[in-house]
Amino acid sequence: MNRQELIEQIRLKKSFLCVGLDTDLKKIPAHLLDEEDPIFEFNKAIIDATKDFAVAYKPNIAFYECHGPKGWASLEKTLAYIPKDCFTIADAKRGDIGNTSTYYAQTFFEYLNFDSVTIAPYMGEDSVTPFLAFKDKWAIVLALTSNKGALDFQMIEDKAGKKLAQHVIEKTNVWGNPDNTMFVVGATRAEQIGEVRSWAPKNFFLVPGVGAQGGSLEDVVKYGWNDDCGLLINSSRAIIYASNGIDFAEKAMQEAKSIQQAMETILNDKGFED
Amino acid sequence: MNRQELIEQIRLKKSFLCVGLDTDLKKIPAHLLDEEDPIFEFNKAIIDATKDFAVAYKPNIAFYECHGPKGWASLEKTLAYIPKDCFTIADAKRGDIGNTSTYYAQTFFEYLNFDSVTIAPYMGEDSVTPFLAFKDKWAIVLALTSNKGALDFQMIEDKAGKKLAQHVIEKTNVWGNPDNTMFVVGATRAEQIGEVRSWAPKNFFLVPGVGAQGGSLEDVVKYGWNDDCGLLINSSRAIIYASNGIDFAEKAMQEAKSIQQAMETILNDKGFED
Repeated sequence: MNRQELIEQIRLKKSFLCVGLDTDLKKIPAHLLDEEDPIFEFNKAIIDATKDFAVAYKPNIAFYECHGPKGWASLEKTLAYIPKDCFTIADAKRGDIGNTSTYYAQTFFEYLNFDSVTIAPYMGEDSVTPFLAFKDKWAIVLALTSNKGALDFQMIEDKAGKKLAQHVIEKTNVWGNPDNTMFVVGATRAEQIGEVRSWAPKNFFLVPGVGAQGGSLEDVVKYGWNDDCGLLINSSRAIIYASNGIDFAEKAMQEAKSIQQAMETILNDKGFED
Repeated sequence: MNRQELIEQIRLKKSFLCVGLDTDLKKIPAHLLDEEDPIFEFNKAIIDATKDFAVAYKPNIAFYECHGPKGWASLEKTLAYIPKDCFTIADAKRGDIGNTSTYYAQTFFEYLNFDSVTIAPYMGEDSVTPFLAFKDKWAIVLALTSNKGALDFQMIEDKAGKKLAQHVIEKTNVWGNPDNTMFVVGATRAEQIGEVRSWAPKNFFLVPGVGAQGGSLEDVVKYGWNDDCGLLINSSRAIIYASNGIDFAEKAMQEAKSIQQAMETILNDKGFED
């Protein structure tokens, strides 16, 4: 999916919600565990329930990989089931030397046909650029993450006062451009989203940390909005585990709808309409 | 495998060679492609041919993941086939928020029973510490890598002149210790290995980049040696693709043996004997 198509979906669905598929056998409703592929059955129900309210889905690869070949089969089925008008994100945080990154890119872009992959930038240029060689595919590079350890390294300043996350953003935008790169910018540091936006005025941000991790939608919009919306706000646990009973899909729908409606109000206020 | 057992294997085999299993269907001998699981058959032959000369094996996960469930099955079989007296490294470069890193750790340490995993440190403490919660298992954290892009970020200096890789090493050794953490330090920057050694006197280094990438064994030892040897030197392509004919295993054995003999001379010179 290219940038214009993504923006079109945001206008159409009046939503910039991404649903995180961190599907955990320990947390899904017990009645699904009797199914042959409980992870896929859960995802299928969640996708059916939320697809009118979400523009993107983000399977967290760790939750599939931990089941070995069976988990990969669940992931393949899930990806095939996501409607084609939704943007798909492999939350894999890969990054390696050039020839190895090329294999990771082929895995997620060709074998699984994801639109995008999250990338850890520590290894520099040749760990990122192999992901930029695919038409209408995206590298979503970690910039300022939402977790506790984010500040261990990401905001270290060099002698000129430039932070590591700013180095990452500036270099990534030399290797790529806002049509094929996004950045992960955590919602738990709302006050810093504005600073990151100043380093990357045009790129989309994938924003985790709203909901379970404590970030607020309003703050993210206040600091992170750009002319094309520029935001994909991810919610995982707050939606997919809204209930662990037989009503899990209905509760997920209500939660997704509630976030979508808040987003619709924002989009209308911003004059960002279809 | 714990540190003492690893050191014992180095003394016993007179080797600190790690064989990288970057097994690529495009590069393995054509006659193997008719087998049901060519990747496993290749690895099996390489392991049989090199196990007397290597103390460690390092499958590069990208090369398995790109084949989906089938690739994971090849990886599982390969890992089960590696002799128990060899140290095993999942070259996966994972790293995510705490609950996700825990899943990656379970995948590689419990599901697949690797001794260690390579970790990308960009996300900080909670991306590394979940890998330190397993007895006799190791986190091998990227410090100064061997690739072209390594210098994009890893050697950025803060206001006090401390480099990012030094921050990574110092913090990692607060979260863990030389009994459960190693660092990736590339052989292509021999002159800098000594600097990295000064930041991490006791940790083992996993050193890629000897051979195909151009680093020299003698330089790595000159700058990286410590009292416990402290080095695992990886060679992938130079060994496993020494020939792509029916003699591939024999040529791999010759190559591994030749490196082991150079290492034996070094170990004897250092008085590091059984």
